[in-house]
Parts: sequence; structure tokens; C-alpha cells
Amino acid sequence: MHRTRVHNLLVSSDGFAAGDEVTLDKPIGEAGALFAKFDGRVIHGIQGAGGPTTVDQAMFSMWGQGVGAEIMGRRKFGPQSGEWPGDGWEGWWGDAPPFQTPCFILTHYLRESIEFANGTSFHFVDASPQEALRLAQDAAGGLDVRIGGGPSTVGEFLQADLIDFLHVVIVPIVLGSGVRIWDHLAGLEHRFSVESVSTSSGLTHQLWNRKARQ
Amino acid sequence: MHRTRVHNLLVSSDGFAAGDEVTLDKPIGEAGALFAKFDGRVIHGIQGAGGPTTVDQAMFSMWGQGVGAEIMGRRKFGPQSGEWPGDGWEGWWGDAPPFQTPCFILTHYLRESIEFANGTSFHFVDASPQEALRLAQDAAGGLDVRIGGGPSTVGEFLQADLIDFLHVVIVPIVLGSGVRIWDHLAGLEHRFSVESVSTSSGLTHQLWNRKARQ
Repeated sequence: MHRTRVHNLLVSSDGFAAGDEVTLDKPIGEAGALFAKFDGRVIHGIQGAGGPTTVDQAMFSMWGQGVGAEIMGRRKFGPQSGEWPGDGWEGWWGDAPPFQTPCFILTHYLRESIEFANGTSFHFVDASPQEALRLAQDAAGGLDVRIGGGPSTVGEFLQADLIDFLHVVIVPIVLGSGVRIWDHLAGLEHRFSVESVSTSSGLTHQLWNRKARQ
Repeated sequence: MHRTRVHNLLVSSDGFAAGDEVTLDKPIGEAGALFAKFDGRVIHGIQGAGGPTTVDQAMFSMWGQGVGAEIMGRRKFGPQSGEWPGDGWEGWWGDAPPFQTPCFILTHYLRESIEFANGTSFHFVDASPQEALRLAQDAAGGLDVRIGGGPSTVGEFLQADLIDFLHVVIVPIVLGSGVRIWDHLAGLEHRFSVESVSTSSGLTHQLWNRKARQ
């Protein structure tokens, strides 16, 4: 059974998961504080941090486990909007993007795919969530598909009821503005079972598992 | 920095981590109840269970992350003692042992190495913990070494202060007898920082990280 998963979705106490404005200097807008206790070194395994190993790291490390493709929104890929400026932009991540799988970028503006030596490739698709998911599943080699964000993209997939597993990390800060994650999702808890655990860092990890579909 | 790690060490409330007697029928003696909430499907990643994903599974899944070799005691490998009976015993695990790395088995009775197609190999060594660790580190390809148990072996490595990371899972049952894990380790907490988290299953995960050595 192959699942569609969301990992490490950092959300403030007031429900914001990104800043309003994304610029070259601020890939996540004004919401950088969300990432203060996130450890990106462990997304492919706890050994990436070299120790000590925390419960937070164990939770963050699920990101790469058994994932064969990612779908992301255009704003996660870059700050541009509208037609691509033809400036050679290949994402925020340099020569070795952390994904190491095919990634499908949702955009109305198509362009050529980009491939990297580490297994990452970027494919630009103008597609509905359902269509994009089908493409990603075909590319995932029997593994799971990750919906990589940003929050608007995660919200669209949740509204379309395409998410099987959602790992939310509640960060005890108050941002006051930004991109809301819970809009248009009233009653989401009826479709999911939720397990929560809080750690010594102050973070709360919520694991939302989709109930069996009737 | 390469570490020596212990994972998923299941311990009863009264401190037992295995049964007294290991037989062909009972690989962990009378302590099978320790494993009632353990999910071995996720040791190489949460996708192994096919969902739903729990906090316990996230913790269990650290087992395989970044590990390049294992050291185990002879009793984990099989129920025999003394000279090997020459009966073709190759461990409990059939043709595809779950380790997928070189494994070093501590025994006074040497025998030929065994190799499996899935990357697992068994090497029999009559060595001190320090010597065995050196062999395992050489074989680990720059990754971490896991001390795989049983509890007597873990205890020896803890007493020799060779463990950098110890993941204990407290199982709220009372066994009354078996192999004790905490013997000869009084004051162990002074060498480690410990973080604990309890889950909805009733298990408590303790992450013991060795403090920096002076």
C-alpha cells in the first residue's frame, strides 16, 4: 500500500506555516522562526547530525524514509511568479538538492526538466492535485509520495482528501501573520486519527493518519 | 564522527531485557511479552508497515539509519553453546537476515563466515568489546556501529564505556525473572544525558546520549 505523506510541517501556535512574502533573501518569508528547532541534517537519517540524537530528530528523520517522489508548489521551488525569467534558476539548493528523487513542481508556466547527479530531478507540471499525484506515483518506483509544501500546496491536497499521513510540528511561537495552514479544513479531524507527543525542546509532534476509506 | 549505538532495547518495568533460557522455540526465552508492541517491520523505514505511522514506529525506525555494521552476542545468533554442532545453523533469520550489513558475533568458538545475498554477513570473533568494535568500525564503511544485543552484550559494552547512544524502550510489564540489563551499571546516568518520551501505546522511549568525553 503506497501512501501520500507530508512531513515536518512546522506550524506556529496561531496556525501559520510560512511567511506572506517569499523573496530571494527569505525563502520562507518572515516565518524563519518556525525553523529554529528544525534539524535538516537528519532528513536522510539520524546519523547526519553526528549525535546527540533527540526525539525531535527521530521524528524529523521520517522525511526520507521510503519516499520515491515529491510534489511541491512553485513557491517552494523559487521566489519568481509568472513567466520564468530565463535566468537559469534551478531552485534554492545548489548542485545537490536534498530530495534525491523525482520532484514535480506545480506551475502554470512549463519549462524543461532539470536533472542532478544525486538522483534529484525537477519536472514542471500544470496539473490538478489528482493528476500530479498520479505522475508522482508512477515515478516513485513503488515507494510513497511526499507532498513537500509549501502550506498552500499541502492545504490543496488535504482539501482534495489525497493525504494519508500528515506530520505536523507545533512550534510554540506566535507569528501574527503569514500563510495559514488550517483554512478551509474545518472538521479535518473526523477523517484522521491523531497521535501527539511533546518533547523536551517544547515542540509537539502530531501524526495524522487517514482513517480507512469506506 | 562515527558512533556506537544501541536501538530498541526493550526493558520491563523490573529491569529484564530477555528471558533466562533461550531455546529453538523461544529465541528470547520467557520474555516474549516485551515484544508485544514492537514493530519489526519498520527497522528499515516506516514505509515497511504500510501505515498508519505511530510515534513508536518513528522511534523504532532509527535502528537501520546510518548503521554499517553490527556486533551481537552468541545467544542472539542461536541457542547453541560450546562447540558448534556442525548442523548448518545460520541464525534465526533464514535466507535474508534483516541486518543487511556485516555482523560480528562474539564467541569463543570460531567458525567460517557466512554471507547472504542481501548484504548481511556473519563473522565469528573471539574478541574483547574494544577489539570487536575496532573490527566492526573497519567494516562499517564510515557509518555507525550498532551493538545488537542481547542484553548481556549491551551491558558489557556499557561497562566498557563504548556506547555513544542507547535507545531504551520501557515496557510497562513485570516479568519477575530473566536477564537484567541494569546490573553493574550503577551511576550510568552520570555519563549520559537522557531524554524521555511516552507514547499513547504505554511505551516510554529513553534516549541516552553519552556526554562529551573529557
